[in-house]
Amino acid sequence: MKQKVYLFSEGNKNMKNLLGGKGANLAEMTNLGLPIPQGFIITTEACNDFLHKNLILTEDLKLEIKNNIFKLEKITGKIFGGTNPLLVSVRSGAPISMPGMMDTILNLGLNDDTVEILSIKINSSFAFSIYSRFIEMFSDIVKNIPREKFACIEEELKKKNIDKDNFYRELTKEYKNLYKITLNEDFPQDPEDQLFQCIIAIFNSWNNNRAKIYRKLNDIDENMGTAVNIQEMVFGNLNNNSGTGVAFTRNPATGENDIFGEYLINAQGEDIVAGIRTPLPISHMKETMPSIYEEFLAYGKQLENHYKEMQDIEFTIENGKLFILQTRNGKRSPYAGIKMAVAMVKENLISKEEAIMRINPKDITILLHGSFSQESLNKEMPLGKGLAGSAGIAVGKIVLRSEDVVDPDSILVRTETSPEDLSGMSIANGILTAKGGLTSHGAVVARSMGKCCVAGCPTLTINLETNKIKIGNMSLKEGEYISIDGYSGNIYKGKLKIDLSDEIEEFYEILNWSKSIKKLSVRMNADTPEDCQRGLRYFAEGVGLCRTEHMFFKTNRIWPMREMIVSDTLEERKSSLEKLKPYQKNDFIEIFKILKEKPVNIRLLDPPLHEFLPTTPEELQKLSKLMKISMAELKYRLQKLEEHNPMLGHRGCRLAVTYPEIYLMQCEAIIEAALEVKKLNINPNIEIMIPLVATFKEFQFIKNKIEENLMNLYPNIKDINYKIGTMIELPRTCLIANKLSKEADFFSFGTNDLTQTTFGISRDDSGKFIEEYKEHHILEKSPFESVDIEGVGELMKIAVDSTRKENPNFKIGICGEQGGDPKTIEYCHNLNLNYVSCSGFRIPIAILAAAQSNIKK
Amino acid sequence: MKQKVYLFSEGNKNMKNLLGGKGANLAEMTNLGLPIPQGFIITTEACNDFLHKNLILTEDLKLEIKNNIFKLEKITGKIFGGTNPLLVSVRSGAPISMPGMMDTILNLGLNDDTVEILSIKINSSFAFSIYSRFIEMFSDIVKNIPREKFACIEEELKKKNIDKDNFYRELTKEYKNLYKITLNEDFPQDPEDQLFQCIIAIFNSWNNNRAKIYRKLNDIDENMGTAVNIQEMVFGNLNNNSGTGVAFTRNPATGENDIFGEYLINAQGEDIVAGIRTPLPISHMKETMPSIYEEFLAYGKQLENHYKEMQDIEFTIENGKLFILQTRNGKRSPYAGIKMAVAMVKENLISKEEAIMRINPKDITILLHGSFSQESLNKEMPLGKGLAGSAGIAVGKIVLRSEDVVDPDSILVRTETSPEDLSGMSIANGILTAKGGLTSHGAVVARSMGKCCVAGCPTLTINLETNKIKIGNMSLKEGEYISIDGYSGNIYKGKLKIDLSDEIEEFYEILNWSKSIKKLSVRMNADTPEDCQRGLRYFAEGVGLCRTEHMFFKTNRIWPMREMIVSDTLEERKSSLEKLKPYQKNDFIEIFKILKEKPVNIRLLDPPLHEFLPTTPEELQKLSKLMKISMAELKYRLQKLEEHNPMLGHRGCRLAVTYPEIYLMQCEAIIEAALEVKKLNINPNIEIMIPLVATFKEFQFIKNKIEENLMNLYPNIKDINYKIGTMIELPRTCLIANKLSKEADFFSFGTNDLTQTTFGISRDDSGKFIEEYKEHHILEKSPFESVDIEGVGELMKIAVDSTRKENPNFKIGICGEQGGDPKTIEYCHNLNLNYVSCSGFRIPIAILAAAQSNIKK
Repeated sequence: MKQKVYLFSEGNKNMKNLLGGKGANLAEMTNLGLPIPQGFIITTEACNDFLHKNLILTEDLKLEIKNNIFKLEKITGKIFGGTNPLLVSVRSGAPISMPGMMDTILNLGLNDDTVEILSIKINSSFAFSIYSRFIEMFSDIVKNIPREKFACIEEELKKKNIDKDNFYRELTKEYKNLYKITLNEDFPQDPEDQLFQCIIAIFNSWNNNRAKIYRKLNDIDENMGTAVNIQEMVFGNLNNNSGTGVAFTRNPATGENDIFGEYLINAQGEDIVAGIRTPLPISHMKETMPSIYEEFLAYGKQLENHYKEMQDIEFTIENGKLFILQTRNGKRSPYAGIKMAVAMVKENLISKEEAIMRINPKDITILLHGSFSQESLNKEMPLGKGLAGSAGIAVGKIVLRSEDVVDPDSILVRTETSPEDLSGMSIANGILTAKGGLTSHGAVVARSMGKCCVAGCPTLTINLETNKIKIGNMSLKEGEYISIDGYSGNIYKGKLKIDLSDEIEEFYEILNWSKSIKKLSVRMNADTPEDCQRGLRYFAEGVGLCRTEHMFFKTNRIWPMREMIVSDTLEERKSSLEKLKPYQKNDFIEIFKILKEKPVNIRLLDPPLHEFLPTTPEELQKLSKLMKISMAELKYRLQKLEEHNPMLGHRGCRLAVTYPEIYLMQCEAIIEAALEVKKLNINPNIEIMIPLVATFKEFQFIKNKIEENLMNLYPNIKDINYKIGTMIELPRTCLIANKLSKEADFFSFGTNDLTQTTFGISRDDSGKFIEEYKEHHILEKSPFESVDIEGVGELMKIAVDSTRKENPNFKIGICGEQGGDPKTIEYCHNLNLNYVSCSGFRIPIAILAAAQSNIKK
Repeated sequence: MKQKVYLFSEGNKNMKNLLGGKGANLAEMTNLGLPIPQGFIITTEACNDFLHKNLILTEDLKLEIKNNIFKLEKITGKIFGGTNPLLVSVRSGAPISMPGMMDTILNLGLNDDTVEILSIKINSSFAFSIYSRFIEMFSDIVKNIPREKFACIEEELKKKNIDKDNFYRELTKEYKNLYKITLNEDFPQDPEDQLFQCIIAIFNSWNNNRAKIYRKLNDIDENMGTAVNIQEMVFGNLNNNSGTGVAFTRNPATGENDIFGEYLINAQGEDIVAGIRTPLPISHMKETMPSIYEEFLAYGKQLENHYKEMQDIEFTIENGKLFILQTRNGKRSPYAGIKMAVAMVKENLISKEEAIMRINPKDITILLHGSFSQESLNKEMPLGKGLAGSAGIAVGKIVLRSEDVVDPDSILVRTETSPEDLSGMSIANGILTAKGGLTSHGAVVARSMGKCCVAGCPTLTINLETNKIKIGNMSLKEGEYISIDGYSGNIYKGKLKIDLSDEIEEFYEILNWSKSIKKLSVRMNADTPEDCQRGLRYFAEGVGLCRTEHMFFKTNRIWPMREMIVSDTLEERKSSLEKLKPYQKNDFIEIFKILKEKPVNIRLLDPPLHEFLPTTPEELQKLSKLMKISMAELKYRLQKLEEHNPMLGHRGCRLAVTYPEIYLMQCEAIIEAALEVKKLNINPNIEIMIPLVATFKEFQFIKNKIEENLMNLYPNIKDINYKIGTMIELPRTCLIANKLSKEADFFSFGTNDLTQTTFGISRDDSGKFIEEYKEHHILEKSPFESVDIEGVGELMKIAVDSTRKENPNFKIGICGEQGGDPKTIEYCHNLNLNYVSCSGFRIPIAILAAAQSNIKK
């Protein structure tokens, strides 16, 4: 028969699955020789047996427990229910920490007899206070008698002014009475009986609702089960030579290598948590209990060196003797995390690889953007919740119209954003929208600007007549302050306090190490010279996606673009294109100057044309005047451009089949810009990317048109280093990738559209149901955040494998939004892609994730 | 060196690639011993050599030609340019018939000397008439001198009243004169020189524009080349004991086994084509030339028996001697094709399989729907052209509003159709729309009704104020007649004459044979009891797709449906669903009664809800009253339902995740109907199909909800034979098919949506660019007509192979529009699907195509 109960000395830290996290660490520390109150652990397997077999403790298990009580009696020299009574704590401990999920029972082993013995040995007040506490905990956790009832009894009793010596004795009597009245039975007096009941309660608590929900939310295996730790009691509340505390071996907020923590004299652990008495900083111990302080410091170092991680340690001092009750890797701020990781490398405690693996890529975002202080989050209830559109936080005055955003102290609040809103978005501190998903215009642009955005808040309505907004039931006027959280999607009234970590040296150290370790290139999605400059600051290795259409959104450029779209004849269209060409050319000159020899991937016009069209009556008027056509004619032409499903409509390279002159103009602008910077001795590395290709002939047709035109116009085109490739953003394209690779120079996965088509889900419309999908755990994450490996990833794999089989060096990258997501980056690394590309602010994350992927592999 | 020139006696009918179709048949007939004017053939390889090597005849080739002239002189006993002059025709002949592409030159070998010899031997008028004809043809074809110039000269000369004997001598003189003036050289006198020039001209004609376009349109290999046939002249215009004719061995219009054709006395082949003299029916020959008639009949039978196909034969009689000039498999009407195929089986000429292979599946459609008479098509120019939305033809009065369609003598003309138009569509003879593609509402419904539809005519505009329509520049009033052609998409003014073939016995015979030969099951897409009855008449083996939403479109049902959609609460929604349930249940009862034990695949609600919503102000008013909510509230709710890309939006099983009550109601209706017909001893075979599934958990979630509900409600559910499966209509679903098959009972490919998502093309919007794609040969066919094998087909293959690998008997079918397309059916057969499903009227086509697929394999 398999062993179901382990003495601390029989385990070690690698037995977490069997002994739980707490138990394994207690065992490890025992073997390290630390002063640990001894005990034993009932395994998770015993828990699972119990849960699967009738919910009773088997006689075998009971016997094994009894044997271990006997062993513990030998170790401690005390006897369970005896004259030198052994008291124990009973605690749950799952392999994965499930905070607050399962409860603790202290002082077990007390009964009407042992309490009297302790009364004599120590004093009556202490003995009955811990007995009454035990009764209260047992009644609550094992018997479900509400704690409030006990609190009431205590309050009433306090009014009676009973002297200290008798108070707890009286209280114990009344508690036992409550127990008897409620359950119609006496409080159990046999310590073994007490223990078995506790164990059953803890086993059962694995299946309480809170625990189930927590596991579901955190994707924890239902069959893991919890261990139970039975440990000798030590008392920090015995006298003034006793106490209890918690400490971190380093500062978890700043990362400083200095012990950090607090303690209370004459108290138990719960007293620190309760916060009734103010604890003292641990440094104070140095003066009052210098030898214990030194002893504790030494144990702290020993543990940190042993675990090679900052430790979060609980300790108790019983009558001048130090006990360690628990140790675990400590939680830290993102800032401290980076500081510590780098410091530990320099202390030769860990390797660079280990340091890199310890940084959560998400923390980088928080580091770069700051976060709301925990304090103010504790105070404020969110008014509503949208999607976490773009990381960061923002505080500002509500502004409802883009043109009214005059300073950064604003949050632009719109139903949906459009290219018209770009100027306002670029000034405002953050963006809040009522409609649109994670890849709506607002969210995409905000991410590319590194600006906080909460998108698609379903309870938000905007009234442009009264200049008020409503979030849920709360009505707010334009000009009032709100705070938005781009990590959680929460929206708050007023100004929340922000914790900001400045950029730190160690951040760049980690990035540099990561750069040298990673294999994947990391490029930026950058549409303007400004974007490019920002991305280079974060070590981008080139441009992975320059969306040429974004160059048209600036005010002076949108009008010829609109003219072009509404043109009815080739001549009209060509004349508008001629107006646009100088803008494009100049932008490319600037970009090439910034990027120098680094690759620049330029995507030719992609979105459906109607995205550029005006919507307000004033703008329509303006366009009709500009084009010298009647409003009726204009409206007729606009109507013709309408589509049922624009995402699947007349866009991407389909525009180039029907209106080849558009791509020809764009390519002319690119090559002319390249010829221009050649004069400055810059030799740009150009990748021209044709979007939305579905068939081989389609790509060939367009490529031929482009090359023919370029050859005709520029006799010295051979001096220019340019390639023509395609974006893979349709399932069909993945299937014919090998064939396409004979004609294309490179591929880049456009995983936004690839996800839309593979799943058949429109990003912009998914908001209506995707939350319910998550709620029912049909989807754990939006596939627009992290690449859906089973579907989209499989298609990518088909494309990569079939292409590389014949052409192992074919260049393939990814430029979808997911290119900045660590899980996606890992997948891309394993697929052997050449690069990932993401918006500038996510580049440090991508570099870190790329390094982690390589280390993991 | 490879032989480049073949005597007729050296070839046979299997050498078409080398000798061309015409040459191979002449060789075959020569070897059958038929009276063929002898000659030789220059191979297609010689043509390709010529085209690829400087466009000159090599000395080797010239020598080989000369040798064959010598051989021909021996065979005929005549000499090229000699006193018994050998005259030849020179004709092109590609391996695949390219009608009208290349020209013929007759009477080659004549010159100023030989014409005089013939003048003496026969008569001057004949000799010079054929010489002048030769000069004219040579000048035109070899030298590009326009024929009109020769026609003018002839006209002028006729005015001069020259006697018959001298007329042609004079004409010849003037023709030669024209030749000399135009080219500044004499008409060539050396027959060899004449011949070489002709051969060069024919070789070059392979690359003329007409030929290139024809090859492109018909996907004929550019490198095939043409052969050249040089054949001794025989003269049907020698005297009244001569003549020429064409005949079919059976009647190509009716299929009757009786010779059918016509001839002219004292004429050459061209005279029949020219149509100046009226030819006599071939039966007339029986009286005037009985022995030649008998001889010809015998040759006809011999050829038909030899080729096992109706032959189209050209013949000439020269001075009482019969010559066969050409034979080929004859073109026939669809009606005749079926008649003949069945007859030939009964005559033991061919096998059933051969008969089936000879029927073009498209002909079945034409048979079932009739067609416009060739005569009226020759007379009328189309007013405009739309997409061939649904096969068939229709003539009727223009009606602009569905409610105004009162009798079938109508064509419903709409910008787009909507569910509101169903009643009108069901009465009208045909449907014409200005917008929408091949799978727009109008086209889909029309196909399911077997009704002619021309969809998306871009030049059609409708003015509902003046009750007029405009097609191109032609304005038409409501009530005027138009004719529409659902095969070509053409629209004509007025009433075109219709040729209608009644249903014929042989049609059912072919279907019966096909049924016994095919492996694939053929089911019908049928939404109503009426559809089901129609499909069974054509031997449907079950229902492959019953779109439950179509059941809601009838007037009395659409209102509770709309209420349900606009509901704001679960209670409202449930109450509307309760109103809909009896309708569904009754429809299912009727369907089960009709189908009995045959499988019925029922797809639960699929389309985006807004498709059901009202659009006109009157209807909005009605709905607001029905629901007792304000118009403002109604509009607000409708706005919330709007989507950017509805095809990728909140639809299909996504509706069941957010509103499970809809599918629960539908399944209750199905099971209650099944329990009802059980009482009549009918045991329906039900397949419940969940649409638009993308993930395993999604299917599991919905299936569990449905089964739980059914188990709760119907204790005797176990008596009902039902399965729950899924439609595969997204790329992702193809990739996870194997996993899904563990939970689903069957799959059915929804290739409409699968094509949309695989290609990233919205059916409804594709009209804007797909025509240009075809024009540039990027796409040869719309992927919505015939499954795109490279993309969609590959995904289907992945799904089928991965599923069947573990579960070889898993049931998989197809129910997309392409399920009735022969090429698609062949692909499905080869994929080993269990069934195809298509609209009722296409079932005979599908049965035939399924049989053909099996025979081919």
